[in-house]
Amino acid sequence: MKIALGQINPIIGDVAGNKAKILDIYSKGVKEGVDLVILPELSVCGYPPQDLIEKKEFREAVYFASVELAKATNDVGLLFGSITEKMEEVGTGIYNSAVLCYDGKIQFVQNKTLLPNYDVFDEVRYFESAKDVSVYNFKNENLGISICEDIWNDADYWKQRRYEKDPVQTLVEKGATVLINISASPYAFGRREERRKMLSVLTETDKMPLTYVCCTGAQTDLIFDGASMCFDSTGKLCLLGKSYGEDFLIFDTKINYEEVTEVEKSFEEEVLAALIFGLREYAAKTGFKKALVGLSGGIDSAIVTYIAVEALGKENVHVVIMPSQYSSEGSVTDSQKLIDVLGISSSNISVQPVFEKVLEMLNPEFNGLPENVAEENLQSRIRGLYLMALSNKHNYLLCTTGNKSEVAVGYATLYGDMCGALGIIADVYKTEVYRICKYINRNEEIIPNEIIEKAPSAELKPNQKDQDSLPPYKILDRILVMYLEEYKELKEIVVEIKDEKLVNDVLNLVDKNEFKRKQAAPALRVTKKAFGYGRRFPIVQNWQRNRL
Amino acid sequence: MKIALGQINPIIGDVAGNKAKILDIYSKGVKEGVDLVILPELSVCGYPPQDLIEKKEFREAVYFASVELAKATNDVGLLFGSITEKMEEVGTGIYNSAVLCYDGKIQFVQNKTLLPNYDVFDEVRYFESAKDVSVYNFKNENLGISICEDIWNDADYWKQRRYEKDPVQTLVEKGATVLINISASPYAFGRREERRKMLSVLTETDKMPLTYVCCTGAQTDLIFDGASMCFDSTGKLCLLGKSYGEDFLIFDTKINYEEVTEVEKSFEEEVLAALIFGLREYAAKTGFKKALVGLSGGIDSAIVTYIAVEALGKENVHVVIMPSQYSSEGSVTDSQKLIDVLGISSSNISVQPVFEKVLEMLNPEFNGLPENVAEENLQSRIRGLYLMALSNKHNYLLCTTGNKSEVAVGYATLYGDMCGALGIIADVYKTEVYRICKYINRNEEIIPNEIIEKAPSAELKPNQKDQDSLPPYKILDRILVMYLEEYKELKEIVVEIKDEKLVNDVLNLVDKNEFKRKQAAPALRVTKKAFGYGRRFPIVQNWQRNRL
Repeated sequence: MKIALGQINPIIGDVAGNKAKILDIYSKGVKEGVDLVILPELSVCGYPPQDLIEKKEFREAVYFASVELAKATNDVGLLFGSITEKMEEVGTGIYNSAVLCYDGKIQFVQNKTLLPNYDVFDEVRYFESAKDVSVYNFKNENLGISICEDIWNDADYWKQRRYEKDPVQTLVEKGATVLINISASPYAFGRREERRKMLSVLTETDKMPLTYVCCTGAQTDLIFDGASMCFDSTGKLCLLGKSYGEDFLIFDTKINYEEVTEVEKSFEEEVLAALIFGLREYAAKTGFKKALVGLSGGIDSAIVTYIAVEALGKENVHVVIMPSQYSSEGSVTDSQKLIDVLGISSSNISVQPVFEKVLEMLNPEFNGLPENVAEENLQSRIRGLYLMALSNKHNYLLCTTGNKSEVAVGYATLYGDMCGALGIIADVYKTEVYRICKYINRNEEIIPNEIIEKAPSAELKPNQKDQDSLPPYKILDRILVMYLEEYKELKEIVVEIKDEKLVNDVLNLVDKNEFKRKQAAPALRVTKKAFGYGRRFPIVQNWQRNRL
Repeated sequence: MKIALGQINPIIGDVAGNKAKILDIYSKGVKEGVDLVILPELSVCGYPPQDLIEKKEFREAVYFASVELAKATNDVGLLFGSITEKMEEVGTGIYNSAVLCYDGKIQFVQNKTLLPNYDVFDEVRYFESAKDVSVYNFKNENLGISICEDIWNDADYWKQRRYEKDPVQTLVEKGATVLINISASPYAFGRREERRKMLSVLTETDKMPLTYVCCTGAQTDLIFDGASMCFDSTGKLCLLGKSYGEDFLIFDTKINYEEVTEVEKSFEEEVLAALIFGLREYAAKTGFKKALVGLSGGIDSAIVTYIAVEALGKENVHVVIMPSQYSSEGSVTDSQKLIDVLGISSSNISVQPVFEKVLEMLNPEFNGLPENVAEENLQSRIRGLYLMALSNKHNYLLCTTGNKSEVAVGYATLYGDMCGALGIIADVYKTEVYRICKYINRNEEIIPNEIIEKAPSAELKPNQKDQDSLPPYKILDRILVMYLEEYKELKEIVVEIKDEKLVNDVLNLVDKNEFKRKQAAPALRVTKKAFGYGRRFPIVQNWQRNRL
């Protein structure tokens, strides 16, 4: 069987646009003489549509588009992801469906059985689970069709399974001869290799070829890498779709392919590519042409500027240097060096005159109280004020520059450096920012070495260094990874880090700064546990009191 | 059977504190000679604990506290909500449980069957559904124990049921003689009357008394009103717990009670009480003593100031008047009148000198472009800057003053008037703000009539009025209610509102301003569909393009 995979980039809610994309891929498949053209999960409406699904008119528009797609088919099959709805006595009757059409009609619908409802996924909120699973005979093959999560519960692979049912096993038992999975799987570093491994074991065990088609594109914070995969019945990866972009593949189950071995590149290369793609996508889908970055002379704003240039082109990136009395000389000269290397436009606007004016106005209110975080935050907020004014005046997309380590411990000013539409590196730890900068500089010095080598500082008071308030980033990041991603608590972390007070303080900082993260810009997600939608903690809570 | 209901206010994650509260209520019940003391859903850890549940150490602490609670019991029963965990082959093995103890031991556990996973609820994210449901014989009664949602699927009451199973029906069939439901049910106006109605039908149909114990307190944005209810076997409401506060009730299933008829007061009275309670709770649980409000002379900041005074006391509320060149005379004089009536402290800090200084600094960057939203937002952001500086310096809780109509259409400045820790009236439409102000003034003029009667204005450019950019609030709010709460789309709304372009524009504003709401402070929830956690829309989406 010859199957064409349409690795498309749908826009959420743009039913007409997505339909046109699907039709285009179908025509291409027909021209290439394939038997079947397949498209990703929910490709008619984009993934994740979230509460749009609760709108009846939205579901109707999606279903109507599906019927129109069916009408456009000849004898070549077209399989795509859509929403279907049934009148049922109990529940919503709404399904996440794979719709198979040919000869002008919807011929078969397989609903999704396993609905992920963890991390960034909320599918039980919207969908009912499939009542049954069947194979469908088409052109002398028994198609075993499943949707994303359906294939992630293989008893041969997982020690602890999430779900009772195994719909793919059911398809195999019912005589499937070709497995098809249509997916929308957000990227995190390591995920692609996981997909390959699991699907390889599954196809080898079940002795069955598999075509696994994924969508691509970024939807606000979620980056869908694409990287569709085709396996033969020995578990061999035969075809691999492009990462971070649309692709069109044809898989012939009768051909003996060379094995594809490399599915994921180095951490630095992958994450950098993902972030560039994520920003480019956000700008494209929201209509921004130009990006704005506040350049501090530090490594975070430097890498964000580099990413913006890669994403939008150097002519579309503007940076602003905003020195204050506490700024080091390097904050300007190092920034200027980066500006020159990247060839971008820049402004230099001092924070000082406004800072002084604000302090003068607030003087009666500050009652001669000693300087504290109020004055520090003020400088950061004046910078935010400048940046937002430029963004409003010139329609720049303001990039937020905070890294994951800072965001975690709240080492950032709400309404100050936290201003912006999108957190470009808010899911990248500080130590990883360094690694990626070194990767960027692998052939030539792009990010100035001065920026990489200087001690990190917020420069909000005299001679301030990050390490005055925080442990060294190497230690901090290790604690954070254990806490945020490995779900370890105080006692377990202390086994490795030894210093109980230090660990306790870091965990308390993380918990207490939930209120800041609640008001943070969405953060491009590149780890399996990012701040934002997939991590949900109460602002008001006292679990931390149960520690020391 | 004599049952004591402990309507407590747990703090999320404060396992030791909650345990002490439960023990205290138990002692009180024992002293009163009751047979059984019951406490709300998840009372050991507070509700909703969200992703704290994913921490093994947290679950262990909660379970360990449950065992200790059991150890403290004599022959009087103690029933409370907790987390239990089982080693199971499939799934997480984590349950939302009702734990019954006496004679020093956990004697019986009933897990929750129906896990709400809509609006603000995410229980499928954490819990497995109960494998079975049983009655438990205790002191010659068969207790039919259920947890919150378990009782909300009555086939006699609901036309369309959400779930297949009906655990309370099962309990009745298995011979229950007394029904007990332990709950954590967030308030929205109308919800209390709904509870009474549904539970009354259920107890009348099943001819079974019911004790329904709810928690109280606010958890960030969610307000739990309490209002526990006891019904006899004829569907009569016999006892009603206090609203917005802790309570202790004793229900004797053998006594013939007078019927309680009024369960909910007027919209104005209920919502005002809920908001005062919500703010007081947020301050208490986060350790803030004093609140800060930016007073514009408009009705929103006026009502928020009144609420703050009611919540924290007049000595703990400070307001700031921040006039600019566009401020009307009334913005100062009307504010001053309110300050005098409420007897609170205030500051007056002009925005003008800083506004001018910022414009001077930005002049080269603005390139002589015409004034636009950049200058308007600047003024709002300078006010935010002042307020945050005072908050940082004096440890004030900054109250956000935007109403639901504004938040819906994005008529607010991100990092400007949207600054603050908690949206006090962000779930109250503008027309409702007026209604509540009139209620506040029912006996004497507290909110100055000048403030109520003036045309709403942001005062960010000369002679600006809200109605220059927005339809009259009466029409806007009606459109918003239909769109946000009744799930109607363009065509259906136009049937009532007639003006298709107007409706289309409003819906587009709502959708396009999702990016602002993503960075908004949490909003005290008083409707069934509030912005925030319970309403999840993608920022990047083009569904609105499918309209006109």
